[in-house]
Amino acid sequence: MKTVGLITEYNPFHNGHKYHIEQAKKLTKADYVVVVMSGNFTQRGIPSIIDKYTRTEIALQCGADLVFELPSYFATSSAENFAYGSINILEQLGFIDTICFGGEYDDLNVFQTVARILNEEPKEYKELLTKALKNGDSFPTARQKALYSLLSDEEILPLLSSPNSILGIEYLKALKRLNSPIKPYILKRKGAGYSDSTLSDTSFSSATAIRAHLEEKKDFCRLSSVMPNEAFSILKQKIGQGFPILPNDFSILLYYKLRTSSKEEILQFLDVSEELADRIYKQLDKFESFEQFAIQLKTKQYTLTRINRCLLHILLNIKKPIPESSYVRLLGFRKGASFLLKQANKEKLPIITKTADAKYQLSPDSYHSFCQDIACNDLYNHIVYDKYKVKLQNEYKHPLVILP
Amino acid sequence: MKTVGLITEYNPFHNGHKYHIEQAKKLTKADYVVVVMSGNFTQRGIPSIIDKYTRTEIALQCGADLVFELPSYFATSSAENFAYGSINILEQLGFIDTICFGGEYDDLNVFQTVARILNEEPKEYKELLTKALKNGDSFPTARQKALYSLLSDEEILPLLSSPNSILGIEYLKALKRLNSPIKPYILKRKGAGYSDSTLSDTSFSSATAIRAHLEEKKDFCRLSSVMPNEAFSILKQKIGQGFPILPNDFSILLYYKLRTSSKEEILQFLDVSEELADRIYKQLDKFESFEQFAIQLKTKQYTLTRINRCLLHILLNIKKPIPESSYVRLLGFRKGASFLLKQANKEKLPIITKTADAKYQLSPDSYHSFCQDIACNDLYNHIVYDKYKVKLQNEYKHPLVILP
Repeated sequence: MKTVGLITEYNPFHNGHKYHIEQAKKLTKADYVVVVMSGNFTQRGIPSIIDKYTRTEIALQCGADLVFELPSYFATSSAENFAYGSINILEQLGFIDTICFGGEYDDLNVFQTVARILNEEPKEYKELLTKALKNGDSFPTARQKALYSLLSDEEILPLLSSPNSILGIEYLKALKRLNSPIKPYILKRKGAGYSDSTLSDTSFSSATAIRAHLEEKKDFCRLSSVMPNEAFSILKQKIGQGFPILPNDFSILLYYKLRTSSKEEILQFLDVSEELADRIYKQLDKFESFEQFAIQLKTKQYTLTRINRCLLHILLNIKKPIPESSYVRLLGFRKGASFLLKQANKEKLPIITKTADAKYQLSPDSYHSFCQDIACNDLYNHIVYDKYKVKLQNEYKHPLVILP
Repeated sequence: MKTVGLITEYNPFHNGHKYHIEQAKKLTKADYVVVVMSGNFTQRGIPSIIDKYTRTEIALQCGADLVFELPSYFATSSAENFAYGSINILEQLGFIDTICFGGEYDDLNVFQTVARILNEEPKEYKELLTKALKNGDSFPTARQKALYSLLSDEEILPLLSSPNSILGIEYLKALKRLNSPIKPYILKRKGAGYSDSTLSDTSFSSATAIRAHLEEKKDFCRLSSVMPNEAFSILKQKIGQGFPILPNDFSILLYYKLRTSSKEEILQFLDVSEELADRIYKQLDKFESFEQFAIQLKTKQYTLTRINRCLLHILLNIKKPIPESSYVRLLGFRKGASFLLKQANKEKLPIITKTADAKYQLSPDSYHSFCQDIACNDLYNHIVYDKYKVKLQNEYKHPLVILP
């Protein structure tokens, strides 16, 4: 009996995700699919378009067997932290054999070489990186240039410029760092690119394109061609009933938080540099919305995603430094896979299945981190209520999603 | 040449306020009316129904000559602080001869007697007060009982149960405390009571009733009978253009602030007791709106106004302890009265006429307090923008309101 671990956001779930689940099982010969998924806030620094329980239900309907929530700290963090937090959970569960991630490029050897360089940071690489940073490049661009100079391999270019592949490298780095026996597989991505912003003519569209389509209030039914039926029919029911939630639904909270925090307070939040805190301060009178302000703050040094993440950390009160992730929350499962939970190494990794029990299961530090997740959830639910007058159940009352 | 000082909120301006201006001039034989007015947040713990510059324009159109803004700390504070902050400004201006306040009862001697007891707190009074508080009465009720036992004068009962008269007593206490030569006058209130919640059939309605009428989206034109023409026509133009602003427009910000603050942080805010912080924590999952939550928190010990003020302090980041008020902001004036500004004792009390100059005019502590006023204003403007998509000018750009 084999299990494959997938690291996901499903924001929202589309045909590419279903393909990923199916092919991952084939490729790794797995019997069960275990998913680690972001909660209500994601690694792009934006809220999820629909709440995590609905996304869990869709994932289970579409082939996942167990769905765990990645704690908000890691879910909203840089690629490196996001990958480390996720891999660490899969590793500590103790029963995961393989992981399978998507990439524009599927030569594992090249991925491994790059991951090794980034983990070990040889002197030559460091010098090239420093030089590029000094030239004013952003960190991702500088890293790309340094690796390219070092490896002089044209084939690695797409690897280093695609967010999915960058995550893939981070997964490999994390596996190595944790000395994990989990075996990695790459699945070549099909259809539209990760960040394509318009719906594709094929049945494969990016989540970005789907969100843009929803944001522009275009014909919802058009999405039936790019999503599995199960996902489409669940989302269709929820249109105007708590879905969609968009970054700008949080605009007023973000403005309020920025306007009532001192620069010293802003600097405490994860990823926020002194320079960015300065820019936020100087530009605040130009604030109109979450998305507009992120673009307003953008410079060559700061990618839009990095800025979104900083703004999200400020909004959600996520502060430095990195906590030790030592819990995971179960969101849902298929009954036939529930036996896997008994195999989990709960000494190493407490699995929260009931919110009220977390207090007794966790160390004070982990519990503090867990309370932050609850707060993130309450804020998300409150915005849903404000926008749609729909009351989602809070974390103390919401049942696990259980499918037959 | 004589000036009378009025302490006001004009939330919104009605016939009773015009009557107050006219009668105050008659009663005190004043040539000029100087108004100290709350900014965008008021002593009842709620936002003002229309922004302070519009209220300034109306006040000037309706007979005021100079309008000053009471700093937000005092404007949103208990009757005692509110009165002290206002009287202190009038006293420090140096050219105010009289004040005139409204009351349900107009025997100045009785007011003075009560003010003296409250200032001096004789032993007998203190014992009676402690006894009533121990019985579980709220502070206003306990004070009322103690004074009544002490004075056994039936006539003082209305004095002690009406918010206007309680403010009157606080003005007298503040005059005494500051050893001020300003002479107080009482004007007997006409028409509806301070807190009457429905419009009266006469031309005198309370501001409370007018706000309730607006909140229920009833026929706006009905208000023409209870407001001076000038006020009515200005407000009519602004309906749906930044007006009305209601407490529940701040609901989402309040929830966010409460949900992302620790109990220790909540306790730092002005007027918040440990008991109230506890109640806020325990009841937070029942939060639906600003007004509903204030009612939710109400107990025999805490009046609704007290709770509103606490919530407003949390929302606006107004912390303990009381700052020394050592500035005042000019909002507008009639040209014919501008010479009064030259007579002001600016050594004692810096008058801010241009926001950008405040930094150089004020001590670091006063400037910190002033920055809080600016933040309150920005938040108010942002809510106006969010609700009506109307951009009010910020404090650095908004000109003074000047009438011929």
